[in-house]
Amino acid sequence: MAIKVLFSAPDGQFARYRAPLSQAFEAAGLTVDLAEDHAPEETDFIVFAPGGQVSDFRPFTRTRAVMGLWAGVESIVTNRTLTQPLARMVDHGMTRGMVEYVAGHALRYHIGMDGHIVNPDHEWAHRTTPLAADRPVTILGLGALGAACAETLAQLGFPVTGWSRSPKTLDNVTCLSGQDGLHRALEGAQIVVLLVPLTAETENVLDAAALARLAPGAFVINPGRGALIDDDALLEALGSGRVAHATLDVFRTEPLPADHPYWSHPRVTVTPHVASETRPVTAARVIAENVRRAEAGEPLLHLVDRDRGY
Amino acid sequence: MAIKVLFSAPDGQFARYRAPLSQAFEAAGLTVDLAEDHAPEETDFIVFAPGGQVSDFRPFTRTRAVMGLWAGVESIVTNRTLTQPLARMVDHGMTRGMVEYVAGHALRYHIGMDGHIVNPDHEWAHRTTPLAADRPVTILGLGALGAACAETLAQLGFPVTGWSRSPKTLDNVTCLSGQDGLHRALEGAQIVVLLVPLTAETENVLDAAALARLAPGAFVINPGRGALIDDDALLEALGSGRVAHATLDVFRTEPLPADHPYWSHPRVTVTPHVASETRPVTAARVIAENVRRAEAGEPLLHLVDRDRGY
Repeated sequence: MAIKVLFSAPDGQFARYRAPLSQAFEAAGLTVDLAEDHAPEETDFIVFAPGGQVSDFRPFTRTRAVMGLWAGVESIVTNRTLTQPLARMVDHGMTRGMVEYVAGHALRYHIGMDGHIVNPDHEWAHRTTPLAADRPVTILGLGALGAACAETLAQLGFPVTGWSRSPKTLDNVTCLSGQDGLHRALEGAQIVVLLVPLTAETENVLDAAALARLAPGAFVINPGRGALIDDDALLEALGSGRVAHATLDVFRTEPLPADHPYWSHPRVTVTPHVASETRPVTAARVIAENVRRAEAGEPLLHLVDRDRGY
Repeated sequence: MAIKVLFSAPDGQFARYRAPLSQAFEAAGLTVDLAEDHAPEETDFIVFAPGGQVSDFRPFTRTRAVMGLWAGVESIVTNRTLTQPLARMVDHGMTRGMVEYVAGHALRYHIGMDGHIVNPDHEWAHRTTPLAADRPVTILGLGALGAACAETLAQLGFPVTGWSRSPKTLDNVTCLSGQDGLHRALEGAQIVVLLVPLTAETENVLDAAALARLAPGAFVINPGRGALIDDDALLEALGSGRVAHATLDVFRTEPLPADHPYWSHPRVTVTPHVASETRPVTAARVIAENVRRAEAGEPLLHLVDRDRGY
């Protein structure tokens, strides 16, 4: 009998995912009935993103796992009706996209690209800039995305410090953890990248006190979650020059409202939540692998710990 | 007796190099008399960049080697009075600077940064962009600089093709050589990086025919030498959209003249010959090592082949 997989995500996503998912299920040797309208009591698995038809998981009495389409699950774990096992998306394509965004913007700041891209006075001014080896970078968060970014920035020559909630070890990266480790990680950083999961503990992790620890004229890159930043504190640090420039991809409200001060701030680049995204072909393989695992009685990949929140 | 090393370079360079050179000679165990005014017939070695006091090398009858400060020697090898051994500069700091410039601008084009850096209408438009794995990059030139850039771009996930005059082998890089190899290297490239030495054979290597081989909407990055590009052909390709954008660091005349069309072209970024530069501390070590080698009767590093021209 076919495994019934319900797809519940915002409009337009089913059209993107239907064919890749069907192919991935077939490649995994699974017979799957994939649809947007299975009855709750007949649904075996849910492929899920917030904003689709499902918001109350209680009727899904036989559903064995909910598989998220996105890496961040902070708006899912707070749903009290969701008691089924929940897996986050950790997608190779998403990881590579994030690495490209973070490495690109780190190098952009490092070599001072903006002054050449926008140079209305046609100034020809040669300044010796430091090498990456003299530009310390700190990454908050060493999950799949943060660790991949840390590794690439280290390969590019930057001295990289990474911070995570629990202790980690990565080649060529100074790994710190805990509250004291957070203070040390921020101290003197010239570029800081936010990739920690959003939890009650990490909300506003980049507040006025944290910003004060960065090197004067530091750069901030936030491809993680908007609420990791205390926006008022960042605007003040940008105003004083304490922070030289920020590139922000995520915001408390998205799309970023038209009247938000970030839009026209001369020291802010807004990117429209493009740093990384789930890519249907690679994500579908992760989902199919988890269905295969559940059917075989094997542990699921990327299972979310509800207490931790990610 | 002290080894007499003459420093001949444009104004201001001696102030930058004097202390690093003295330290490097001392660290190499050499007793050196470093000055800008040794008599030609008493000079053992010359540290040289075009534009200083020396242009006629014939009076330097006991000079055992001329050690260039720059990587490019096309304006030195054509000096018929220079018959002494000539070494190019291959400096670790210069190589890393070049890698940072090339990787930064390649990622800038790849993720479409410019549209976010300059976004006067505050457009919030999410577009799925390809991953680096789907963006073929071609590097012309696989010397110390080109090879290091090729390796880093491959680590970032780009499929990299490199072309050089003589056959080379590099891990994770498709290496081509010869005229036929050049055609294949350019075919369908979405980003092309120019790092070949400038010789009679490579002048205008990026001409109309070469540009026509690139993928439509390709990006050009030239941190090599200005004369590698047929400027009229590039302007035409930019005008037609055949080439989407070019970042140019080097020009036939530098500084780039105020009335040059590149300055105000909407599809050109001019950088003022900053892609890479010799850095006194690391370069001084290379020069000291070559003096040590000459004193010990060992072969010099980075010796220029006058026939080849680099």
